[in-house]
Formats: sequence, C-alpha cells, structure tokens
Amino acid sequence: MNYTTLSKKQLSALKAELELKYQQFQARGLKLDMSRGKPGADQLDLSMGMLDVLSSKDSLVSSDGMDLRNYGGLDGIPEAKKLMADLMGVDPSEVIMGGNSSLNLMYDMVARAYTLGVYGGEPWCKTEKPKFLCPVPGYDRHFAITEQFGIQMINIPTDENGPDMEMVEDLVKDPTVKGIWCVPMYANPSGIVYSDEVVERLARLDAAADNFRIFYDNAYIVHHLYDDAPKQLNLLKAAKKAGKAHQVYMFTSTSKISFAGSGISAFAANAENIAYIKKQMSIQTISHDKINQMRHVLFFKNADGIRAHMKKHAAILRPKFEMVAGMLDKNLGGKGIGSWNTPRGGYFISFNGLPGTAARTVALCKEAGVVLTGAGAAFPYGKDPEDKNIRIAPSYPPVSELEVAAELFCICAELAAVEKLLKE
Amino acid sequence: MNYTTLSKKQLSALKAELELKYQQFQARGLKLDMSRGKPGADQLDLSMGMLDVLSSKDSLVSSDGMDLRNYGGLDGIPEAKKLMADLMGVDPSEVIMGGNSSLNLMYDMVARAYTLGVYGGEPWCKTEKPKFLCPVPGYDRHFAITEQFGIQMINIPTDENGPDMEMVEDLVKDPTVKGIWCVPMYANPSGIVYSDEVVERLARLDAAADNFRIFYDNAYIVHHLYDDAPKQLNLLKAAKKAGKAHQVYMFTSTSKISFAGSGISAFAANAENIAYIKKQMSIQTISHDKINQMRHVLFFKNADGIRAHMKKHAAILRPKFEMVAGMLDKNLGGKGIGSWNTPRGGYFISFNGLPGTAARTVALCKEAGVVLTGAGAAFPYGKDPEDKNIRIAPSYPPVSELEVAAELFCICAELAAVEKLLKE
Repeated sequence: MNYTTLSKKQLSALKAELELKYQQFQARGLKLDMSRGKPGADQLDLSMGMLDVLSSKDSLVSSDGMDLRNYGGLDGIPEAKKLMADLMGVDPSEVIMGGNSSLNLMYDMVARAYTLGVYGGEPWCKTEKPKFLCPVPGYDRHFAITEQFGIQMINIPTDENGPDMEMVEDLVKDPTVKGIWCVPMYANPSGIVYSDEVVERLARLDAAADNFRIFYDNAYIVHHLYDDAPKQLNLLKAAKKAGKAHQVYMFTSTSKISFAGSGISAFAANAENIAYIKKQMSIQTISHDKINQMRHVLFFKNADGIRAHMKKHAAILRPKFEMVAGMLDKNLGGKGIGSWNTPRGGYFISFNGLPGTAARTVALCKEAGVVLTGAGAAFPYGKDPEDKNIRIAPSYPPVSELEVAAELFCICAELAAVEKLLKE
Repeated sequence: MNYTTLSKKQLSALKAELELKYQQFQARGLKLDMSRGKPGADQLDLSMGMLDVLSSKDSLVSSDGMDLRNYGGLDGIPEAKKLMADLMGVDPSEVIMGGNSSLNLMYDMVARAYTLGVYGGEPWCKTEKPKFLCPVPGYDRHFAITEQFGIQMINIPTDENGPDMEMVEDLVKDPTVKGIWCVPMYANPSGIVYSDEVVERLARLDAAADNFRIFYDNAYIVHHLYDDAPKQLNLLKAAKKAGKAHQVYMFTSTSKISFAGSGISAFAANAENIAYIKKQMSIQTISHDKINQMRHVLFFKNADGIRAHMKKHAAILRPKFEMVAGMLDKNLGGKGIGSWNTPRGGYFISFNGLPGTAARTVALCKEAGVVLTGAGAAFPYGKDPEDKNIRIAPSYPPVSELEVAAELFCICAELAAVEKLLKE
C-alpha cells in the first residue's frame, strides 16, 4: 500500500490510528538514545585485555630504543606506525601517529592548513572566501570543523558509488576551493563504499589551488559487518601514479576498534607532506602518548590481529543493524514514504523520508523519549535542503531497547509522512 | 682571582693551560646530553605502579557514571578535575583537562585565541601586528609557539622576583599586546619564584586589549627540591579580587610527575573563559583520554599523594643539582666570568657568562661531546642580545656522567671567557 496514492480520508483514518499507537509509546516513558555512533558496552569489553598488556614489570622501550615513558618520538613509535601503516595500506614512513582521536588530528590539520599553510601552498586564510566540498549526507563533526574556521561549504550529492565526481572535478577548477571531506569506506551516514572509479577520479583530481587537500577519513576502514569485506583502491597509491600524491591526507583511528577516547589515531600522506607537517607539529607537541601506542601494538600484534578483533565487533553489531533494517522493511516497506540503506559496515543507517518530514520525525521521537541525531545534522550548517534525511545510530543500545526505539521510529516516520501528505 | 683584572700575558698562559685540559676531555670521546629538561630513568621508575592500577578486572566508570572507555567527558572526569584543581588551588569547575601535555594545551589556546578569539575579545589575527611579552630568559617552546603564529615578541627583563612589572604594566597599555608568557614557580630556566608582589601586580594588570591573556605555565608547581616549599599567591584568586579574572589562563601537567608524554594536563580559568573555551573545544575533540586520567587519580589518590611523590623525585634530582652548582662554585667562583642560580626546584640551572661567550661555550662543549641547549634558546627568536645565557639541564644524565659534563662545561666557559678577555 503506497501512501502517496491514498485519499485524504484514508490518510486521516491512518493518522488517527498512528496517533493512538504513538500515544501508547509515549505512555511508556521511554529514555533511549540512537543519536551518536557510540560503541556498546559489550563492544568495549572486547578490548579489556589491553589493560593487562603492560605492567610495572615490563620494560617500556620501543624497537628503536626509545624509553616510552620519556619525552620524544614526535611521529610515534615505529611499531605503532607499522601497525597503522599496514591498516591503511601505506609505508610506515608515510605515517604520523596522532593522539587519542582522528577528529582532533583532522581538526589540527585544518587549523594548520588554515593558519600556517600546507606543503607547497599558502595558508587558506590568505584566500578571501575559502571553500570546501562536502559530499552529503556526511559527518556532522567534519562540517563543524570547516564551519568553525569560516570556510564556506558546498554540498556535493552522493550516490551508491560516492560523491558526484563530475561536480567535484568541475568545482576544483576554482582556486578558492581548498579541500573535500570524504569517508570512503561505509560513509557516515550513508554506509556507501566509494567505487574504485570514484577513488581513481579523486586520485587524479586536478585542483587549481596548490593548497587543495582531500581529507580522506577512513574511520571505518576495517569496520565490516560481513565477511565479504570490499576491496577498495588505495587513494594515496593511486594519487602517486597520477602525480597528485600531495593532495592526499588520510586519517584513521582505533576509536571504534579499542576504546573510544583512549585509542590511537594515525595520519598518512606522501613524504613531502609528512616532512612539512612534522616540522609544523614540532611546535605544538613533543609526542603523543607512546605508552598507549605500545598497548595497542601488544594487544593487537598486527593488522590481521585488528581484522580478527573486528569480527568480534561485527558479531555484536550485525544483529543490531539487521534488526533495525528489518524493522524498517517490515513497517515502512512498500509505503512510498521513505528509503534507507542496508549497510555492510560502519556505524549508521541513513533514512530518507518524504521531503519535509525529517525534523518532524525526530521531534516526534524525542517527545516519546527516543533521541535521534538532529535532523539536518548530516549536512553543512545543519541544513538538509529537503528536510528528509535522518541518521540512525544502532550501535549503542542493547538489541531489546533498540527494537523498541526502531518500532517507535517507524511510527513517527509514518505519522510525519501522513501529516505531510494530508497537507498537500 | 678575578680574570677581568689579569694582564694579557696572564690570560695567554691561562688559555694555554685551559686548552690543554680541554684537549684531554676531547680525547675521551664523550657523548653526554644536558640539553633538555628530561626526567631520568630512575625518576620514571617511580611511576611504574601506575601501569598496575587498572586491569581488565576493573570497572571503568567515573564518579558521575561515565564509562571511561567510551566517548564523552569533554572537560575530563570529575576525579581528575578535582586532583588537578587541588594542585592548582582552584575549584574543579574552573578546570578543563587537556591531553598528554600542557605544551599542546598552551599551543591550542594560542591557536584558538589567534584564529577564533577569546571570551569577550576578537581573534588576535584581526590585529595587524599582535605582540606578546616574554620574560627572559624563558622557555624556548613558549617562544616557538608565538613565533609560529607570527606574533611579535618583546623581551622583558627578569630579576629574582620575576618579570620587570613596571615595564609590563607600561606595555599592556598598548592594545596590540595580547599576552605574556609566565613560568611563576621555578621559572624555566632561571629557577626564580615570582614574588607575591609580582603575582599581585600580574593579577591587577590593566591591559588595554580585551583579548589580553596571561599564559601562566605552572609547569613546576610541585617540583620542589627542598622541603621548605615556597608559598605563592594564587594568581586566579588574586585576579578575581582585582576584577581581572578573565585575563588569567593557568596551565600545569604531570609530565614531570608521572610519565613525560603519557601524563595528563590541565587548564584553569574563570567560569566565563571555561564556558567559552569548552564550546570552542567541542569542535576539536570529544574528550581526552579518560582512562589515563583515571590511572593518575588511582595512582596518586589526591594532591597530597602527588606532593609525597614529588619528594621522591627531589631525592633523585637534588644531588644532581647540588653537584652541578657545587662544580660551578668550585671551578668558576670568584673569577668574575659568570653567575648562576642555585635553584630550589624546577629543572634548570641558568648560567650567565661574560657577554659574547655563550655561543662559544656551547660550541666548545659540543665539540668535546657534551650537548647543551643551544645558546640563545631561552630568548625569543633564539637571540640572546648579550650572548651570555646558557641553560643547563642536569636532570637526565646519571650523576657520574653529569660530573664529567659539568667539569667540561666549566673548562669551556672559562676558555670562552679567557678568549673573550684576550680580544678586549
């Protein structure tokens, strides 16, 4: 039954029915949170062993003889650089270890590029109106960074292959365009995996600005829900072949592998960028936490160790994602009032309702005790031009709570859609 | 025997004698480092117990119910804020926890003030030629930060009470003056402790710029070498009384208490600054490492625990400082070619040779295998206008090595002085 074909009378009856269901949910006094991509407690339990890998009986020395307890090691200990390099498919010499989050690392890279400049290019602040390309829907915290620096953001539509590359290729001819935010693997929130063609075209981008950079946030690089993990072209390698390696900044972290907030992060780029950034960084810090880097190395051993660990995460997350996707299929399928992805990895389900219903759906959920990410959050300036996208984060609540929240979500999305159709 | 009264002939004889001694040292092929204020391995051993305070058997929850392993807690866990607040003599609500170093925290505060602005004031970058006051000799890494942002630095002479406050009070009438770097307790490198009068005058500073801030780096807040720790007026409290609390930014860290690079850092300021900065920070990070904050809380328990721990550091450091100071007294005392402090805490001995001899002394030491901090490092732009100041860092080498290094240092300082006097 496609709701868009219903008469006003039918819609009114449906509305009354949905309102009744909604009121029943309201009466339950729920207090559930599907707003952020936080790991659940059971996922965090998987890494508790990391707290035991170093004790007062151990000697804390890196393979190059550094006392991990003392100053030094600006770009990280060799073992950690190797671990993260293997994960990112680059050489350890192309890695700088960051602190406890890649968000901070990305923020600092934007801040440096904006104020101090990048290898071979002047500071972005020297451009009167610097701009950034933002594939949408995207990661709200990315957009918040560029917004804080007053960088104008341009929405780039995405499809199942990634951002609209024709538009990107056209826009980078403008020298005031300084960068693009990308989440190439299980994009936040759409869950899409950039196709090799898209990665190839990103690698070859012929930007007019010599201080243009691709901020390639590989936050979900090993965050597969299923065993058939997609293979993806390596951007830095492809960009090297295209003679455009200087345009690539890659990021990742263990925030959703070990402990969120107590993980390690890593940055990868070509030799010139690395040397330039290390020099800039040396004024900001002496080193990040080398002991914590060693904890990760000892606990995971190598990149395969991380991949094996991620299968345990997947076993916990998969039922949650399948439950929500199943609920959406069952309750909203075929009604013509929304579409959603069935992600193969990452942390989110992206729901697109009827235009003009997202804010209302989120408000209805909130009034019944279920917090979702704010409508529009996945767009620059928090403004979804169609007011239709909602990011669902199924990772944190236990399955039982999630089921209730997802059921309520469906009712709210349906109610908002019916209200909307009645007004048309 | 005061060298400045000697004849050229006497000086020449002395020179030959010193050169012989110097050559003997050179022949030993030394490789010693007195360049940075690094803790020694035995000092780091004092904190090894910190690696045992948390294990996989513990529940990692803060007093306000936060799962330390997950996202959240932008300004730190309540227990850590209390610990650092007690150390700094402020209220926990006046504290924001930083990452693994106060250097990074200070850098970020400068970066934010420069690009984004401070509470009640526009970004420093809006001022055509922003300036900073730099008590000298001072901390090279402070000066490197302001230099990186292109902030013009003005040398402020210091005496045994702290910076020349008359000069400071006069200069802050200029609205392009945006801040001052201070190390109030055992200043780096002079070791002086700001007098209460100086702190009081800092607290009352009537700066013309509404975005003026005192960067008060209490790096050595509990780093006493002797039991008679000085009491010092609390800047934030005094500034509150004077109605100038908004001008105060205070910093400290456990870098030289627990592990350098794996410690925790803290920032303190009044409520308005804290609220404003937390909002700015929320774009940069979700939180710093809460697990490591808890490790520090469990290991030290409270501020008194830290103070007791610092007595163990002092027991290791005191003989090193006394050895170097004793060597300087014995070998250079009464010769009229230099003066030095006998610090009661901190990490450095500041040596002032004859004008025009510091670079030569450092070069002589280096050629004989002893690395010192570069001459001029304690001044903005690395330029000691008189070329006389050398920072000696006695903490890292074992006493036996230190003795050799200090003996060589005396010969080099003497030789450089004699060379200089011969040219006059």
